[in-house]
Amino acid sequence: MQRRKIKLIIQYDGYDYSGWQIQPGKRTIQGLLSDAVSDLVGWRTTVHGASRTDAGVSALGQVAVFEILSPIPTENFRDAINDRLPRDIVIISAELADQSFDIMGGVKSKHYRYTIYTGKARPVFDIRKCWHLPRNLDTAAMNRAAQFLVGKKDFKSFASSKDKRDSFVRTIFRCDVTGEDKKVIVDVEGDSFLYNMVRNIVGTLAEIGLGRWPPEKMIEILYAKDRRAAGQIAPPQGLCLMWIKY
Amino acid sequence: MQRRKIKLIIQYDGYDYSGWQIQPGKRTIQGLLSDAVSDLVGWRTTVHGASRTDAGVSALGQVAVFEILSPIPTENFRDAINDRLPRDIVIISAELADQSFDIMGGVKSKHYRYTIYTGKARPVFDIRKCWHLPRNLDTAAMNRAAQFLVGKKDFKSFASSKDKRDSFVRTIFRCDVTGEDKKVIVDVEGDSFLYNMVRNIVGTLAEIGLGRWPPEKMIEILYAKDRRAAGQIAPPQGLCLMWIKY
Repeated sequence: MQRRKIKLIIQYDGYDYSGWQIQPGKRTIQGLLSDAVSDLVGWRTTVHGASRTDAGVSALGQVAVFEILSPIPTENFRDAINDRLPRDIVIISAELADQSFDIMGGVKSKHYRYTIYTGKARPVFDIRKCWHLPRNLDTAAMNRAAQFLVGKKDFKSFASSKDKRDSFVRTIFRCDVTGEDKKVIVDVEGDSFLYNMVRNIVGTLAEIGLGRWPPEKMIEILYAKDRRAAGQIAPPQGLCLMWIKY
Repeated sequence: MQRRKIKLIIQYDGYDYSGWQIQPGKRTIQGLLSDAVSDLVGWRTTVHGASRTDAGVSALGQVAVFEILSPIPTENFRDAINDRLPRDIVIISAELADQSFDIMGGVKSKHYRYTIYTGKARPVFDIRKCWHLPRNLDTAAMNRAAQFLVGKKDFKSFASSKDKRDSFVRTIFRCDVTGEDKKVIVDVEGDSFLYNMVRNIVGTLAEIGLGRWPPEKMIEILYAKDRRAAGQIAPPQGLCLMWIKY
């Protein structure tokens, strides 16, 4: 029997979870997924994800991997794991990965989408997946500001102050703000993201959308390399990991 | 100070609730709404609804009423009650009603919508508001069957066997089955509905959509006036009360 790497694509409504990463005593996606795989294969197995999404953050295209030494055919994993997961987590595909597949190092780009709902009444069916900000937002101004973020830049102003890495340089390929009906959507694609980076970007774009800051303020914020220069963090439930490319 | 009747239009995601009606020790919409109004006006007030939606059933247009003797201006009720409600219940409007307004007796028609999701993977974001039936459904056959229900008929075969009324005659104005993408939608409008009637109709239509019964079976089921003649009850979370006309 050969050791196999199984690559998963996973969707979840993260609203009721303490995020991706396993934490003792907490209900996490990685925790429940590892429990499900362990139960299936018969010994303790940990599933490793590409993105450590925060508490309340959802995903339509999280990628994860686990290694096994088991006779179970690869094509049986998807349904067998799904049978062992709660209703708000689902495996979309389970495929054999190359032994060289690197779940974190191999990422080429990620797409996050943030949804703001601007209607007056709380959207009872969407409250788990949007930030309810019942105000008029100037999406054209937000989109102009967003374009200053595109490129290879130092994003220290948008990193959590708890983030203590050496380099805050990341590349954003695309950052678009669009409005339709009572929703404002922020789409961000990049090679990798700092802790809380997308939510800090959205919080800053909201200040601009509300007219408190001009779009050009974004240049100044980037230049400051200081978390205090940017806007407040946007709430987690508006954020969704759309896909990851390798 | 004059006694006033305040009419509410309410939306809720009913998935986490034990239904509309107040029950001791249970989390219900009527219970939380009555608590919110009581807290606001300063003494115990009960809110009465037009439809006693079941556990797990949602609403986009529930109507309810309460009576008060309070100096609070009518236009302040909506926001003040919303501040006292959880995120998955919202008052859309609060208006002064005529003293003769009859919340149950005055109903002219109601519209319920039932949503079936037929995609293979669990829809993690919609699981709270659909029946996940990952099968091919013949919507044309379902819609043909649905037309036999339109009119003034005895719907005893679609009433809960617990329902012990004298008359099971109701009028259905419209019953349409439509399919789009991976969803099958059943829209039913009627003057009034028996306990579990819409969910029993949908369960029966599903049997027809799966090809187990021909559309004409519906005639036979109506004729039987026996709950055992119809299909199984469809799960509650697919059902949504859309509006009520007076």
